[in-house]
Amino acid sequence: MTDSNTVRLEAFSDGVFAIAITLLVLGIKVPSASELSQAHGLWPALAGRWPSYVGFVASFFIVGVMWTNHHALIEYLRRVDRRLLLANLFLLMGVSFLPYPTAVLAQNLANPVTRTDATVFYGVALAFNSLTYNVLWWLGRSQRTLLEPNVHDLGLRAITRRYALTLLGAVVATGLAVLNVWLSLAIHLAVYAVNARSEPASDIH
Amino acid sequence: MTDSNTVRLEAFSDGVFAIAITLLVLGIKVPSASELSQAHGLWPALAGRWPSYVGFVASFFIVGVMWTNHHALIEYLRRVDRRLLLANLFLLMGVSFLPYPTAVLAQNLANPVTRTDATVFYGVALAFNSLTYNVLWWLGRSQRTLLEPNVHDLGLRAITRRYALTLLGAVVATGLAVLNVWLSLAIHLAVYAVNARSEPASDIH
Amino acid sequence: MTDSNTVRLEAFSDGVFAIAITLLVLGIKVPSASELSQAHGLWPALAGRWPSYVGFVASFFIVGVMWTNHHALIEYLRRVDRRLLLANLFLLMGVSFLPYPTAVLAQNLANPVTRTDATVFYGVALAFNSLTYNVLWWLGRSQRTLLEPNVHDLGLRAITRRYALTLLGAVVATGLAVLNVWLSLAIHLAVYAVNARSEPASDIH
Amino acid sequence: MTDSNTVRLEAFSDGVFAIAITLLVLGIKVPSASELSQAHGLWPALAGRWPSYVGFVASFFIVGVMWTNHHALIEYLRRVDRRLLLANLFLLMGVSFLPYPTAVLAQNLANPVTRTDATVFYGVALAFNSLTYNVLWWLGRSQRTLLEPNVHDLGLRAITRRYALTLLGAVVATGLAVLNVWLSLAIHLAVYAVNARSEPASDIH
Repeated sequence: MTDSNTVRLEAFSDGVFAIAITLLVLGIKVPSASELSQAHGLWPALAGRWPSYVGFVASFFIVGVMWTNHHALIEYLRRVDRRLLLANLFLLMGVSFLPYPTAVLAQNLANPVTRTDATVFYGVALAFNSLTYNVLWWLGRSQRTLLEPNVHDLGLRAITRRYALTLLGAVVATGLAVLNVWLSLAIHLAVYAVNARSEPASDIH
Repeated sequence: MTDSNTVRLEAFSDGVFAIAITLLVLGIKVPSASELSQAHGLWPALAGRWPSYVGFVASFFIVGVMWTNHHALIEYLRRVDRRLLLANLFLLMGVSFLPYPTAVLAQNLANPVTRTDATVFYGVALAFNSLTYNVLWWLGRSQRTLLEPNVHDLGLRAITRRYALTLLGAVVATGLAVLNVWLSLAIHLAVYAVNARSEPASDIH
Repeated sequence: MTDSNTVRLEAFSDGVFAIAITLLVLGIKVPSASELSQAHGLWPALAGRWPSYVGFVASFFIVGVMWTNHHALIEYLRRVDRRLLLANLFLLMGVSFLPYPTAVLAQNLANPVTRTDATVFYGVALAFNSLTYNVLWWLGRSQRTLLEPNVHDLGLRAITRRYALTLLGAVVATGLAVLNVWLSLAIHLAVYAVNARSEPASDIH
Repeated sequence: MTDSNTVRLEAFSDGVFAIAITLLVLGIKVPSASELSQAHGLWPALAGRWPSYVGFVASFFIVGVMWTNHHALIEYLRRVDRRLLLANLFLLMGVSFLPYPTAVLAQNLANPVTRTDATVFYGVALAFNSLTYNVLWWLGRSQRTLLEPNVHDLGLRAITRRYALTLLGAVVATGLAVLNVWLSLAIHLAVYAVNARSEPASDIH
């Protein structure tokens, strides 16, 4: 397959990433007139939306890093076959699903009764996302002919390890939500912050 | 016409596919506070959204395969004329309409009284989509000058047959919804699973 | 300016067109449970949404032809200056505003009291769109250095006339809404159907 | 890094800009049946939506100019490193957040009690956006190897000054909202109108 094969896959994937990341803002509801009078003013009503802002910023950052990682992953592929196309479709399904668990998190983060469950739900969605990256990578790596010829074995193993650790991090963070939701969210963000930094800049050309 | 003609048609179509597939998540409504108390917790409330998840996964998979098929179809065309542009516009109309029947399906799938009708409505939308692919293909095939010169007659006939079978599958699945909605949805998915596999990988370069 | 200048303007414009055309479906509201029981079933409730389908199909067709026209217009330009960028921004503003008058039309088309006003509002939005095309074209035509060198004067005059006629058609159709809303909508569609056909296929390479 | 590095960053950013600018229309709510009867007709109900139109036009214009500025900024960069990618992600976060403060502004602009706070909130969002442009620019400028080799020091200083002035304008306009919301909005628009004009056309190739 020619280069145009991964080019169009990238373009479609970029579109889904860009739309999913921009749809996150629709999860933040404008305070209604009745909320304004109940909250005694606009500022308290806007401040009362803090769980929505937390969810927006967290998911925006995570989807943004996912996009960079997706770019880096596709760069290693010389071509994609049907199985990779399908694996990428499941990956995009996870990405475009994220505005929903983000909205669920935002709606429940201020509620002590339901916020643990909402954080676990959010974490399960992130773990699913991480799993789809692992599957896409494993499928790509399993056939040497799908990879760019100039990729070193060392690089392959480093990526395999990083994706596995990201999945482990998502699972651990999700489990810790039972203890403390803020700790859980902090670990999710830390995992992606590490991801954003660990990739050498020369890998994303 | 030059190559840039189909390139821009593809870019616009890709945009519509990417947006339609990503808008599907907006059909999943976050459980409200009153639903949470009624369902005795977040998990039962989230679990009660299962028809929305079924609709999301089914339509995401179907639109994803449609996108791949659209790509494969356009690859056979050397250039597009006005009639093809218009046929493609109707195809995109069908694709971007899909979030609506998906939301109708999701809202009624748990309701024994209305779920048959909702599944028929969903099936009619899919059959319309399949019809637009057939029309686009027939128009493209009817004029040899629109096709890439290196396309074999055997390949043309294989595609004609596959598109016809996809339409037949959509009609049959839609009719069977009267007997059983799950059987109907399973056949719709099976048709697109076959579609996703039947295309030789070498056709999607 | 190099070719990449109009390329990126086109890419951004294409994105806005693709998103605006796909957002139209969000204007079709899924029948609620109370509507279902009031309408005695799903089919009557879905059938009761006919004004939404009329609005969706009409605006999808119109925006689709607008996209083709925009493509054709940009093809005549060798480069864009600040004034053209700004004129194009106003054009895109009109395009991305269209889901709103479409939703207003859909909500009022079945109401004999308000449908005339809604159709006039819809028509004014279309006339504004047509006006922005005329402004963009006039600005582009006014400076010969902005145009592709191989464009004939005859072609320029033909386009000037067509854009002027499209604007005239939109104004006439909008005025006729006072007599009959269906006649008004039919003329709007006819104007764009003529537009879709009148452009010679060789102009859209 | 090769040219393709900034190309894909631009494509993703363009996607986010195009989606954010097109989502603005979703903030304009269609008058409901009860509003129509309360307002004695469709025209008064549509006219009563004027704050939404003001917000739509203002934010559309501002995001449109931001897109042009982003294009101009990226053109100065030869390549992007991790820090620039992250700074660009925060910039895009600010852009895709804008539909929310725009909707808050629209909902409160007709309310004398809350419109000052809503305008300040809108202004803070714009100031944040301006800040992210400054940060992205500072990071890019700090390493000469990231810049295109043919950029003059004079040009660099002009851009640095313009971004700083834009931020200052946003802060001043936001502060003046306490005195008069219309003055504040007018200054915000004036800042971006100047921005749209001050860039020499030769810089946006």
